[in-house]
Amino acid sequence: MQVKDLGEFGVIALLNKIVITERGGPDNSAAFDIRLLVDTGDDTAAWHTGSTTQLFTTDTVVEGVHFTRQTTPWRDLGWKSLASNISDIAAMGGLPLYALVTLGLPPETEIADLEELYRGLLAIGNQYGVSIVGGDMVRSPVVFITVALTGVQAGQSMLRSTARPGDKLAVTGYVGGSGGGLKLMQEKVKASPEAVAYLCKVHRRPVPDVAAGQILIDAGVSTAMDISDGLADDLSKLCLASGVSARIFADQIPAHPLLKEAFPEDYLTLALNGGEDYHLLFATPQPVMERVMPQLPEGAAVIGEITAGEPGKVVVVDYAGAETVAPRHGWDHFS
Amino acid sequence: MQVKDLGEFGVIALLNKIVITERGGPDNSAAFDIRLLVDTGDDTAAWHTGSTTQLFTTDTVVEGVHFTRQTTPWRDLGWKSLASNISDIAAMGGLPLYALVTLGLPPETEIADLEELYRGLLAIGNQYGVSIVGGDMVRSPVVFITVALTGVQAGQSMLRSTARPGDKLAVTGYVGGSGGGLKLMQEKVKASPEAVAYLCKVHRRPVPDVAAGQILIDAGVSTAMDISDGLADDLSKLCLASGVSARIFADQIPAHPLLKEAFPEDYLTLALNGGEDYHLLFATPQPVMERVMPQLPEGAAVIGEITAGEPGKVVVVDYAGAETVAPRHGWDHFS
Repeated sequence: MQVKDLGEFGVIALLNKIVITERGGPDNSAAFDIRLLVDTGDDTAAWHTGSTTQLFTTDTVVEGVHFTRQTTPWRDLGWKSLASNISDIAAMGGLPLYALVTLGLPPETEIADLEELYRGLLAIGNQYGVSIVGGDMVRSPVVFITVALTGVQAGQSMLRSTARPGDKLAVTGYVGGSGGGLKLMQEKVKASPEAVAYLCKVHRRPVPDVAAGQILIDAGVSTAMDISDGLADDLSKLCLASGVSARIFADQIPAHPLLKEAFPEDYLTLALNGGEDYHLLFATPQPVMERVMPQLPEGAAVIGEITAGEPGKVVVVDYAGAETVAPRHGWDHFS
Repeated sequence: MQVKDLGEFGVIALLNKIVITERGGPDNSAAFDIRLLVDTGDDTAAWHTGSTTQLFTTDTVVEGVHFTRQTTPWRDLGWKSLASNISDIAAMGGLPLYALVTLGLPPETEIADLEELYRGLLAIGNQYGVSIVGGDMVRSPVVFITVALTGVQAGQSMLRSTARPGDKLAVTGYVGGSGGGLKLMQEKVKASPEAVAYLCKVHRRPVPDVAAGQILIDAGVSTAMDISDGLADDLSKLCLASGVSARIFADQIPAHPLLKEAFPEDYLTLALNGGEDYHLLFATPQPVMERVMPQLPEGAAVIGEITAGEPGKVVVVDYAGAETVAPRHGWDHFS
């Protein structure tokens, strides 16, 4: 059996099982009074040391799989490579701290392009208080960029596994814009200059919701993840981790007016399955939701609720009230 | 200008310069009383939090560049991917802790091979008290494996930049064996079964010197790095970071008897330039050296001394007393 037969999520589940079952032996953390709080399967790993929770995550992009040079200039590639990791830290309620950058590069890579890449990395790093403190550079037939990022937070992290039936579901910003920007560039869709500018910007320069993560955790939200593979898909993962289902309402999903204008037919599909939005998806009881929503920025919206039922099942209620089950794993890169 | 023109170390120097110059803005560490102790350019980054020093490193292997499936079975590949990172933590004097594993995989990768890879990762992880706590999996035309590893230590880290003229130089074990094992397999060299078994084992299952790192730091050694790119090359890097030269003696470099037996003509070249030894190279004043050497395992040896002179220059004194300057950057993968 090969990776493409089992699929990305099947392979990850299998390997996680091997790790959890066979991992053991002495652990150096005991001597330093360090406790592992969050293991494999959430946005980041987390452990407690002293009075601080340490967060640790990594994310990789590969040319031709996650990006092309046509739709993502080098500077934006740098920005996005760090953005996806910062977003994982944001989803736990943490602040990002130190990054290691690994570059896989063909020998023919232009130095000027690498400088652009680093200017993008530094632009977002400086904006979010992240310092690049090292990395690795290796020869590779395709460009790939792996960022490993640490973060810190004072208290409990927000998890994927703590949603309960009756919790309200919300997102911290507009969804579908990044997918719309990509579709616009790939299919050369005609749209107004305002829509082109907006959609390309949210695709190329996503803005991770670190501040929103802080607002959520301060308000007492305990369930969150970031939206990187598409709202429906990520919600399904959250539900699977929590052992619950969800029901969301098409007319409540926040699609930006310029996304609707450029894609009057497709905007809902893009909002559900577009990917790379890097806003946060969270679940919390109604009283907390009422308290937190007014503090969140434009675009944030309650989109539905957690229900008891088959773990991972997501039902979308359309404008006419008809219910459909959202397909899963929209971004399985192996299938 | 392209990467292959500037070379691996030229590109790294350029990008580090951009990072150091342009990095800035607010840093989230202040709020958590975290101080960066070791920046880019050493074996790991390091920062102080509470009473503990946190270490952070990453290392990548790419199929066809760092390994082939012919010379490195999947289980050994898993072992080696984590070993090189553990070795970086050892070189600082730390204990390794948590790892994130990123896999770049062609869709045709066999699941059974991945299981083997993970058994190798877990075998060394369990031996060294390292827990795999997450990672990423992406599609790629070639196999690559990136491990990001954290570590901890109580006090000051050993650095590359603190060697002073007059310090004695030593290594914590035999060098050249891994390079010998690779050469044996690639060139189908005839050798005794004992030599084949020994050399293939040190190539496929290197044993990072975490315990030796602890001995060094307890004895008061402040300058160390791990030997991954070959003794001569890594010593040159240490000298460059410290602004000094070095003189080493061919007859003092520890080559294992089975390496000498299998490669009677080439063993010194392998010991100087072989790579992937994963022992530690360290420099310290004579009194400390006298104290620490008896505590180190078989193979450890004093090999020469630090001298004032051109930064990065390494002179090798041969058996007849003749001096040659060691060529640099033996493992530039781009040139």
